[in-house]
Amino acid sequence: MEPVKVGLLGLGTVGGGTANVLSRNAEEISRRAGRDIIITHASARDISKPRLCDTSQMKLTENPLDVVSDPDVEIIVELIGGDTLSKELVLKAIANKKHVVTANKALIAKYGNEIFSAAQKNGVMVAFEAAVAGGIPIIKALREGLAGNTIDWLAGIINGTGNFILTEMEQKQRDFADVLAEAQRLGYAEADPTFDVEGIDAAHKLTILASIAFGIPLQFDKVYCEGISKICREDVEYASELGYTIKHLGVSRRTDNGIELRVHPTLISRERLIANVNGVMNAVLVHGDAVGPTLYYGAGAGSDPTASAVVADIIDVVRVLTTDSENRVPHLAFQPSKIQDMPILAIDDIETAYYCRLTVDDRAGVLAEITRIFAEFDISIVSMVQKELHNSQDEKCSIVLITHKTIENKMNSAISQIQSLECVDGEIVKIRLEELDG
Amino acid sequence: MEPVKVGLLGLGTVGGGTANVLSRNAEEISRRAGRDIIITHASARDISKPRLCDTSQMKLTENPLDVVSDPDVEIIVELIGGDTLSKELVLKAIANKKHVVTANKALIAKYGNEIFSAAQKNGVMVAFEAAVAGGIPIIKALREGLAGNTIDWLAGIINGTGNFILTEMEQKQRDFADVLAEAQRLGYAEADPTFDVEGIDAAHKLTILASIAFGIPLQFDKVYCEGISKICREDVEYASELGYTIKHLGVSRRTDNGIELRVHPTLISRERLIANVNGVMNAVLVHGDAVGPTLYYGAGAGSDPTASAVVADIIDVVRVLTTDSENRVPHLAFQPSKIQDMPILAIDDIETAYYCRLTVDDRAGVLAEITRIFAEFDISIVSMVQKELHNSQDEKCSIVLITHKTIENKMNSAISQIQSLECVDGEIVKIRLEELDG
Repeated sequence: MEPVKVGLLGLGTVGGGTANVLSRNAEEISRRAGRDIIITHASARDISKPRLCDTSQMKLTENPLDVVSDPDVEIIVELIGGDTLSKELVLKAIANKKHVVTANKALIAKYGNEIFSAAQKNGVMVAFEAAVAGGIPIIKALREGLAGNTIDWLAGIINGTGNFILTEMEQKQRDFADVLAEAQRLGYAEADPTFDVEGIDAAHKLTILASIAFGIPLQFDKVYCEGISKICREDVEYASELGYTIKHLGVSRRTDNGIELRVHPTLISRERLIANVNGVMNAVLVHGDAVGPTLYYGAGAGSDPTASAVVADIIDVVRVLTTDSENRVPHLAFQPSKIQDMPILAIDDIETAYYCRLTVDDRAGVLAEITRIFAEFDISIVSMVQKELHNSQDEKCSIVLITHKTIENKMNSAISQIQSLECVDGEIVKIRLEELDG
Repeated sequence: MEPVKVGLLGLGTVGGGTANVLSRNAEEISRRAGRDIIITHASARDISKPRLCDTSQMKLTENPLDVVSDPDVEIIVELIGGDTLSKELVLKAIANKKHVVTANKALIAKYGNEIFSAAQKNGVMVAFEAAVAGGIPIIKALREGLAGNTIDWLAGIINGTGNFILTEMEQKQRDFADVLAEAQRLGYAEADPTFDVEGIDAAHKLTILASIAFGIPLQFDKVYCEGISKICREDVEYASELGYTIKHLGVSRRTDNGIELRVHPTLISRERLIANVNGVMNAVLVHGDAVGPTLYYGAGAGSDPTASAVVADIIDVVRVLTTDSENRVPHLAFQPSKIQDMPILAIDDIETAYYCRLTVDDRAGVLAEITRIFAEFDISIVSMVQKELHNSQDEKCSIVLITHKTIENKMNSAISQIQSLECVDGEIVKIRLEELDG
């Protein structure tokens, strides 16, 4: 059979990695796919720049539209990122009846509903394994491997930069700003780190995971999103003393009242496997009603790991090139007509446990005042410890406590009452805590 | 569309679980697969027995051949186990042009080459996700999710019973026999525990994983297989003091000289995620050249978790019911004509690190004699500690040491020379140690 001809948009880190993996593993890939796969046409902003990959067998252009409208190309691989030009190109490719593979989480999270609908109309596939958790085949696991389950919940460490920062803060007692600066030097974090440290990148990925897990439309704008930039070294230390690790998690859970969709720092018991996922590595924990808890771990970013997912998608597409479009795995796991718009819970309505830290006057009666307010709101406290302040000449101390599960709304009301007590100094720190058990 | 009609062979733990999951999640499954899936015909050895699942909508028979030749049935689900009757039934089903889903690792490991070849001839699929690591979608991950990689190695905790026993031995300082008896009471271990504790079950599963990873034929008879029945509490304790956990691993690695294929107890640094997989849970670590290390964790056995994999396979089969057979994912990941018979290394030729424990005379010069022999064989020692014996009136002590990587052959020669020293008492214990790093 003729080789399958691929058009590549973008020759940067992931684009170069994809070209390298396709050529390095050409024989293994052909043995699996049953056909050779070659990149015949590629675009880059500046084609004169030196590349990490061999481009000698590709037609090169600075106009990505040339690639998208190349009649010889059957599969377009979109690796330019962003959600403006990439959207235009992907929709053009689909209109030209070309299959698309993309690593673009922002694009899928924000415009996936429109893109998949166009793909369905044109009988083509849009594959996006690389958009979530890099090389971990989590989309495939969730969409196909767990297809017999009603998914109860999922929770993931889906931003490597954030996990690197939190791991360094814990293991080396460092401050957030200090580690962030190092991550930027190492190339783990962008010059503008907002997407990573404020949780937007994780929210894009969570949007995609939740849609596939629960059969709901992609709705990025409904994700509650909180980053790690306010996490202090002392909270990391106190959590650790209590047997917890702070991880930045994307959490989505099916409840009787709707779907939880939230990204935030989270205390997790060190006993949990996912609490031991460190550095730039990612992991997603998925709980199905039949399978119970399952976990998928691997590199969440980087040239070769992301290329691994891109190439797997290309092979998947090659396998369906000659099948009719009705029998494919649906883009979002559920048949398009069966996607159901379930309500997304407001953050006020979610239920979880909490870690709190308060700075208070170091005198009798203070604890009684605080615990009375929690009791009034029916919030029960699992454990409470008093901590000397590092700088203790001012007769203050810290109180660190962990609550049982409660509704966020109640917790916020309790905290706001406690905050107004005269004995409480400075802002109360509240970090969510998840059991992540059976 | 008409519902897809499934014939079920076996109504035991997994068969009952499969019927339950299909009916409990009927709506979710239909939303994903695009069709309803119903079990219309089922066989059991004694159909009068009470069942865990509702059989009121099924035709029941005690003759499984009735099901296999039922013209209405499109997919046969084989859940009777064993490798005699099940083989006959699966081959009959294939001859009758029915797709097959099976959870039977022994059957696939021993007769898979023949079965897949028959399936290919008849244009049907044989799906077997449930045969390895229960509910973990590891077959799919390896075969499709990592299809862009050259797989370097894989290592798995793929027998839950064995992992339960080792976990209890470590966490509660218990003896092997004691924990095994409890596992039998709890139903985790069979009355005849040989398959689990001697590694045969793990060897079946490793055979399948290695074939899919490397594109080699299934060759169960070439797996080196060592169980956990000789693991002593003191080795578990000493390993733990040195920062290691003993796990029963299936390991397969691509080397320049051939493929390693081995099942045995293994020391793993507690720093590794897989060392923290405890109790009956399973996990498989797969290292690809592009993706790096990835890990897949979940329940390796049990009614519902295994059913999760069986149902995922049924849905996969439903999706290809109307496609032509040339474009499917190949059974063993690689196109049948591209399966290559690479040499399997003899255990003597594998390279790994080792933990050794020796009981020796507690006197000067003994260490010198032992280390001299290791040096003669070019085996370098990473660490060595002397341990008081629990019962020390006889002037003996234990020496526990860890070596760098060496060829098993050399290690065995060194050990046999050391064993013959007068100062050495009793049998030297040797347990392999794997780094499992990048």
